[in-house]
Amino acid sequence: MDFEENTTNQKNVHTIDGSKEQHNFNEQDQHGLYKAIFNRRDVRGQFLPDAIPHKVLSRVLYAAHHAPSVGFMQPWDFIVIQSPEVKNKIHQDFSLAHQEAQAMFESNKQETYKNLKLEGIIESPINICITCDRERTGKTVIGRTHMKEMDLYSSVCAVQNFWLAARAEGVGVGWVSILHPEALRDTLLLPDNVVPIAYLCLGYVSHFKEKPELEAANWLPRRPIDELVSFDSWGQSASNSEEKSLITQLQLDEKFPQSFADKK
Amino acid sequence: MDFEENTTNQKNVHTIDGSKEQHNFNEQDQHGLYKAIFNRRDVRGQFLPDAIPHKVLSRVLYAAHHAPSVGFMQPWDFIVIQSPEVKNKIHQDFSLAHQEAQAMFESNKQETYKNLKLEGIIESPINICITCDRERTGKTVIGRTHMKEMDLYSSVCAVQNFWLAARAEGVGVGWVSILHPEALRDTLLLPDNVVPIAYLCLGYVSHFKEKPELEAANWLPRRPIDELVSFDSWGQSASNSEEKSLITQLQLDEKFPQSFADKK
Repeated sequence: MDFEENTTNQKNVHTIDGSKEQHNFNEQDQHGLYKAIFNRRDVRGQFLPDAIPHKVLSRVLYAAHHAPSVGFMQPWDFIVIQSPEVKNKIHQDFSLAHQEAQAMFESNKQETYKNLKLEGIIESPINICITCDRERTGKTVIGRTHMKEMDLYSSVCAVQNFWLAARAEGVGVGWVSILHPEALRDTLLLPDNVVPIAYLCLGYVSHFKEKPELEAANWLPRRPIDELVSFDSWGQSASNSEEKSLITQLQLDEKFPQSFADKK
Repeated sequence: MDFEENTTNQKNVHTIDGSKEQHNFNEQDQHGLYKAIFNRRDVRGQFLPDAIPHKVLSRVLYAAHHAPSVGFMQPWDFIVIQSPEVKNKIHQDFSLAHQEAQAMFESNKQETYKNLKLEGIIESPINICITCDRERTGKTVIGRTHMKEMDLYSSVCAVQNFWLAARAEGVGVGWVSILHPEALRDTLLLPDNVVPIAYLCLGYVSHFKEKPELEAANWLPRRPIDELVSFDSWGQSASNSEEKSLITQLQLDEKFPQSFADKK
């Protein structure tokens, strides 16, 4: 592996200066994390009906539960949905929202939009709704005093942990957001203080796509990362040699994500 | 490792039924991901001044850039802050917000709150603000037609990827949310369409704490995960043997997260 040349794998210690990187993971552990990050996909069309063993689902749920949370609120809940009635109801709402959405696009994009497969509600064996209970630990929460949406963001972090762990377990996850939040709330009987954050479809898959589907469909390109980095304030480009060297490094690392591509 | 007994490591294939799990990562790669998830900490007080090599920062930024995003918007930007003037301005706003926050807690919690170290703005060598450009790809975005906050959530997923990658690289990250969003916007010159999502402090650390600080300080306990899982609708507990078996599995796996504890 060529992305960390200074690793002494046996000792689990990086040695650039002998101390500052002593908490680095070893090369293999770093590989596992980056592999999950770069091979995670939003799965819509490749679900298999096979049951997910509870041992697998349990590990993925623990990953979600150990997300960061503002004031250690742990505001998330996990509603595991297998009832065909509930899935059908959600799917009906998706169909309505999907129709409404199509009309919102400019005419030249409507045809492409219509043909995109955007959910796997029925064919995935399990749906899971991850929520945020805004009142879980009272009204005043450390870290939420000035940024009121921090608890919502905590539940989003749980979603991302869930997604990465599922990928490592070989389980595909698709996040369905073309739903009316109020309909979702009604169907799942959510109390007023509970916000639905993510409606997820999960299951084993025939394959994971090599690239995000909207990238592969030429809907939008991957943005060059060096255009997304600025210094000290919005839009301020690199103005000294150190800042320029970070930009150069980002350009050199253009193939870093692809180096984890799953070759199987 | 005892969390996947059916792994045939050499072949990179799990064999529970010979097909459905063929996209599982091997045991070592799974280990790396779970280790990052369970050992990630919100760092406030253990920052070292050592510079973070650009090779490391570049990899962490790529991890963030490969987060999921609604409609492939990639709405994030990364403002890298090293200017002492900017850091001081942010820190002044933190101090003000922190004082305001203290007064919001009930009197018996104010003393504990005051003594918590909640940021490392000055002493961490780099601060990074991750933002969300709500207009990056036009007004109509696939998947954001009915849930308007999906782009904000995409940037949060980028934060979580960033945080996990930093942990694997031995770099500590602290998310500072006790700030006035408008002051942050003014200091960083953010345009109206750009929302500051996370203000992060990063740097190498003397150590990563064994547990989240608020858990260790007995501010709040870790919630039992089996109380967070319901079935088919809010609050509906396991009602058949299959659902009950998932709850039992979660209880059996109580020590799963600790099994990844960094022993160094």
